[in-house]
Amino acid sequence: MTTGTLFIVSAPSGAGKTSLLKALVETEEHVRVSVSHTTRPKRPGETDGVDYHFVDKEVFSNMVESGAFLEHAEVFGNFYGTSEAGIRDQLEQGDDVILEIDWQGAQQVRARFPATVSIFILPPTPEALRQRLGSRGQDSDEVIQRRLGEAREEMSHYPEYDYIVVNDLFDQALGELRAIITAQRLRQPSQAARLQERLRSLLG
Amino acid sequence: MTTGTLFIVSAPSGAGKTSLLKALVETEEHVRVSVSHTTRPKRPGETDGVDYHFVDKEVFSNMVESGAFLEHAEVFGNFYGTSEAGIRDQLEQGDDVILEIDWQGAQQVRARFPATVSIFILPPTPEALRQRLGSRGQDSDEVIQRRLGEAREEMSHYPEYDYIVVNDLFDQALGELRAIITAQRLRQPSQAARLQERLRSLLG
Repeated sequence: MTTGTLFIVSAPSGAGKTSLLKALVETEEHVRVSVSHTTRPKRPGETDGVDYHFVDKEVFSNMVESGAFLEHAEVFGNFYGTSEAGIRDQLEQGDDVILEIDWQGAQQVRARFPATVSIFILPPTPEALRQRLGSRGQDSDEVIQRRLGEAREEMSHYPEYDYIVVNDLFDQALGELRAIITAQRLRQPSQAARLQERLRSLLG
Repeated sequence: MTTGTLFIVSAPSGAGKTSLLKALVETEEHVRVSVSHTTRPKRPGETDGVDYHFVDKEVFSNMVESGAFLEHAEVFGNFYGTSEAGIRDQLEQGDDVILEIDWQGAQQVRARFPATVSIFILPPTPEALRQRLGSRGQDSDEVIQRRLGEAREEMSHYPEYDYIVVNDLFDQALGELRAIITAQRLRQPSQAARLQERLRSLLG
């Protein structure tokens, strides 16, 4: 029985991470994006259990107290967390699981799952980043400046990651994410477990 | 300046390694298969400097004495060796270099280039291996049995390798070799070197 790999994918807002991961799980078998728990209100178009597990603050803090989360964080007054049991269950089914979390969550997860493989996605240029961060059109310069500052803070943690992918051309970046996942599955210990019987017959 | 990666690819005879690597270098930029030195006679269709550097025993043993080889070995009375200067030169040009060597050569190279990435290619089944080893049609059972024994000895070293690829479907195996090379280029230290200026402008 081969267990899957836990991947962490981080990026500043505006790098296109969510679109890339959506395309990845739609086209690649046995890869899932982990569904987080959150206390933030559901936005139009979001589905409970698909985009997030939407819970109230009491449920969330009970989960924190019982140690249910692999990592959790507060962002703009809302709480977000990754349930450890859910992840372990998916990995044991042999699926690769992707966590979409920031550098702080990544540090917490690496401490508990040292075998994690982490990927940082960068926007191609500062101009592209600024454009994507301001593209909602209704934001003041001040808000955009604050977002840029947060993006820079997130990007400054790139050296903590195993891989770096630049999202310049979408299809190329998607192909690169696929190559990282494929290569990980070809690593000797995973393959030796997967190919156990074949190796026995080849080695006679 | 980013230097390339030194890949070692090993396989038992009959696993299809040479055809896979030929297709790989024909379709992938900045990947070369290292050209070895050998004292064995040139076969019909082979070109000096392309298939091998064909040298006589005196030249070869002078190179051994001067420490020119990264690894060398005797196989069936002929000598084979990989020139260290040639490899370093290609890596410094930013190309990835593939060494087609056996497990013994692999051990010698890892000792001198610890950053080497090694890949073991397996045939799909014992039947396929036996068929490919005997397919020259003119070999006695005894010769085929000896080759099978050598193939098993080579394959028993698979745990020393970073990656395992099974050559069942040629195109799939080729895609897997490509994924390993692509992923290696995306590793954080290589990318950080390649993206130095971009990172500087993004981090402002």
